[in-house]
Amino acid sequence: MNSAVIIPVGDELLNGSVTDTNSAWIASRLFLSGIEVKRILCVGDTMEELLSAITLATQIADIIIITGGLGPTKDDITKHALCIWSGSALKRDEPSYQRILQYMKARGREVNSLNASQADVPAACRVLPNINGTAPGMWFDLHGKTLISLPGVPYEMKAIIEDFVLQDLQSRYSDSLILESSLLVSGVPESELALLLEGFERDLPYRLQIAYLPEPGLVKLKLRLQSSPANKSADLILLNTWIDKAADIIGIAVLGRNGDTLESVIISDLRSAGKTLAIAESCTGGTIGSMLVSIPGASDVFVGGVMSYSNEMKVSLLGVDSEILHSHGAVSEAVACAMAVGVRKLSQSDYGLSVTGIAGPDGGSKDKPVGTVWIGIADSTGVQAFHFRFEQHRMRNIRKASLAALDILRKKHWGFLGKGSN
Amino acid sequence: MNSAVIIPVGDELLNGSVTDTNSAWIASRLFLSGIEVKRILCVGDTMEELLSAITLATQIADIIIITGGLGPTKDDITKHALCIWSGSALKRDEPSYQRILQYMKARGREVNSLNASQADVPAACRVLPNINGTAPGMWFDLHGKTLISLPGVPYEMKAIIEDFVLQDLQSRYSDSLILESSLLVSGVPESELALLLEGFERDLPYRLQIAYLPEPGLVKLKLRLQSSPANKSADLILLNTWIDKAADIIGIAVLGRNGDTLESVIISDLRSAGKTLAIAESCTGGTIGSMLVSIPGASDVFVGGVMSYSNEMKVSLLGVDSEILHSHGAVSEAVACAMAVGVRKLSQSDYGLSVTGIAGPDGGSKDKPVGTVWIGIADSTGVQAFHFRFEQHRMRNIRKASLAALDILRKKHWGFLGKGSN
Repeated sequence: MNSAVIIPVGDELLNGSVTDTNSAWIASRLFLSGIEVKRILCVGDTMEELLSAITLATQIADIIIITGGLGPTKDDITKHALCIWSGSALKRDEPSYQRILQYMKARGREVNSLNASQADVPAACRVLPNINGTAPGMWFDLHGKTLISLPGVPYEMKAIIEDFVLQDLQSRYSDSLILESSLLVSGVPESELALLLEGFERDLPYRLQIAYLPEPGLVKLKLRLQSSPANKSADLILLNTWIDKAADIIGIAVLGRNGDTLESVIISDLRSAGKTLAIAESCTGGTIGSMLVSIPGASDVFVGGVMSYSNEMKVSLLGVDSEILHSHGAVSEAVACAMAVGVRKLSQSDYGLSVTGIAGPDGGSKDKPVGTVWIGIADSTGVQAFHFRFEQHRMRNIRKASLAALDILRKKHWGFLGKGSN
Repeated sequence: MNSAVIIPVGDELLNGSVTDTNSAWIASRLFLSGIEVKRILCVGDTMEELLSAITLATQIADIIIITGGLGPTKDDITKHALCIWSGSALKRDEPSYQRILQYMKARGREVNSLNASQADVPAACRVLPNINGTAPGMWFDLHGKTLISLPGVPYEMKAIIEDFVLQDLQSRYSDSLILESSLLVSGVPESELALLLEGFERDLPYRLQIAYLPEPGLVKLKLRLQSSPANKSADLILLNTWIDKAADIIGIAVLGRNGDTLESVIISDLRSAGKTLAIAESCTGGTIGSMLVSIPGASDVFVGGVMSYSNEMKVSLLGVDSEILHSHGAVSEAVACAMAVGVRKLSQSDYGLSVTGIAGPDGGSKDKPVGTVWIGIADSTGVQAFHFRFEQHRMRNIRKASLAALDILRKKHWGFLGKGSN
């Protein structure tokens, strides 16, 4: 495998004002192209530091990718460092200058001398056009190495990488590529999943690697395989055979594959089935709705619902019996069921989904500690509710309750929960 | 300033499976303690790479902080590298072993030999207790340098840094500290803000540094001042005088200070005033609600509301006149007003806040392109609505519309918007 070093540049990264998310994104793209990132060397806006990082990088890798330090102000020094490194002077790049003129014109702004100077690049480089901003990317082939300098703004950087960098790098540096396939597994802790797959891992061909990537409430299970353009088709079949085997073993906890999310799977499955959904959110207060509307076209499925944060809203809007609220408490099976039935009825939707719980940090009791959550699901056949006990942390409880609710909806829709009661 | 290097360790960081958020967090804490991070050197789980990063780090800094690579499996090699670096062998740390026993017992799990081995640390280190996990932190004073090794799990790492690291490092390495104060500014682009503060920046004493940190819809304006324990009180007065001056110049766009967020300011201000709030969300679909319930105690203020994603919900739940919906369209001043009035009425709350818009990517027209949003606010004096034109990107539109709505509520509550109409 050919190797790369990523050099994120910026004082704001070293004083913690900004978290570097660019490097992980670049690293994942290079990895799949069969290029291994050996190090990420984050330095400040200092000529000496940047030049020493470049020197070090060229000693250990063939490809150097620099992000940031291309702004128009004087503390951005990447371009000047690259003049020194490449032994070439700044030179106006006319196409970049024209793009800057257009960019500013489209925003009704004048081009000042600082903006214009962003079209000046070291003469030794080839320009990588930036369609989303004013700082062009730069590609150097020098001293037997490839050095690429990109703006630090994530969506500017990403467009340049995808449009002008990845394919060139791969064809020049990589005769291999990494094939990946993943399962999104819900509600099974990583350790239990690993236990479940013990036999599977034992039988797995040595070329296939398995990785468990846990996030709150979910685990992403990845299989990876180093391949080559020539063997890609055959290797994809091998990879998919084994990912299917893993999916069979894990069963209904597998909610999706590759780029899926719980919310995208629900929108797509309910859309195919022509079903609609309404939700009644108490402790999650709109979080499930915000997850659903993040998916373009959610309106085909999601009609809306009620944030019944107060008890009064549960009674007045959802028609929850105040007797039941009083005798069972707002966080109870009976209220979760009444909320699900209520929101389904008032929205005339196919499914009614409800969440009521104690997110914390206050409001817990001995019987119902912080983290107690009831989730209700209603459809034309009846209603049922499920009890969860999450943890002490408010934001994690809200997140886990939202995921658990969507997962119950998924299982209901897939026919795994049986009928509710009336 | 004394200096530090942070070394995040892990193959998952170099193949992009995981984004390193630990380094920015550590860097910001060190920065405020007067310790400068010179580099962040991210390496994989390879003995040679880690040892070479440690060697490089000790050449350029006094303090080395390593995160990750402390898991119980054989690919975690940080501890073995530190045995080599410190010339000492692994030795069982009895207090750590007892903590692991307790940790596993509390979770109903057995301690196996892998877990137990996490209590083995290089004899040359002082143990930093990990109350949230099984891998202890380690502190080495060797070769005239301080090296600290911490687990990679963010909340385990953070607790150790705060409880056992920062104060010791500061008292030993730093005779200075950085004082910071910030303003959260809403709805003014960074470039306009800089123009507004041109005179302010000219007059600013040279010891004070200004920084603009933009995020969607907001800009954080920071003033920083290098101080010392002895001068801290006097310098805090100087810093606050200048931050007050900036706040005066910026005016009502300043929504809060330091740790504030728009949602925390709203919950706290409405709570003090004894006011309640209900919301009607169309295109934001619950996002405003989810922002509000992220604040503990939100239920004192936020009674809930309606996700009126479909037109039917706007009519049936909020009482929006279907004539108005038909003649003006769902994204209109009239509908925004009707939604705000409707949700206020049905919840009996002091404020009713509404959002209706076209988040995209589809649904736009020539008259109402993607990004068109109307926000309505109703109180006892009447109702008014405001028009926004955001951009093409669905998630940014949802985020910006949610922030704009909360900011209109803030301005209404602060008395800047005048009376609505009836």
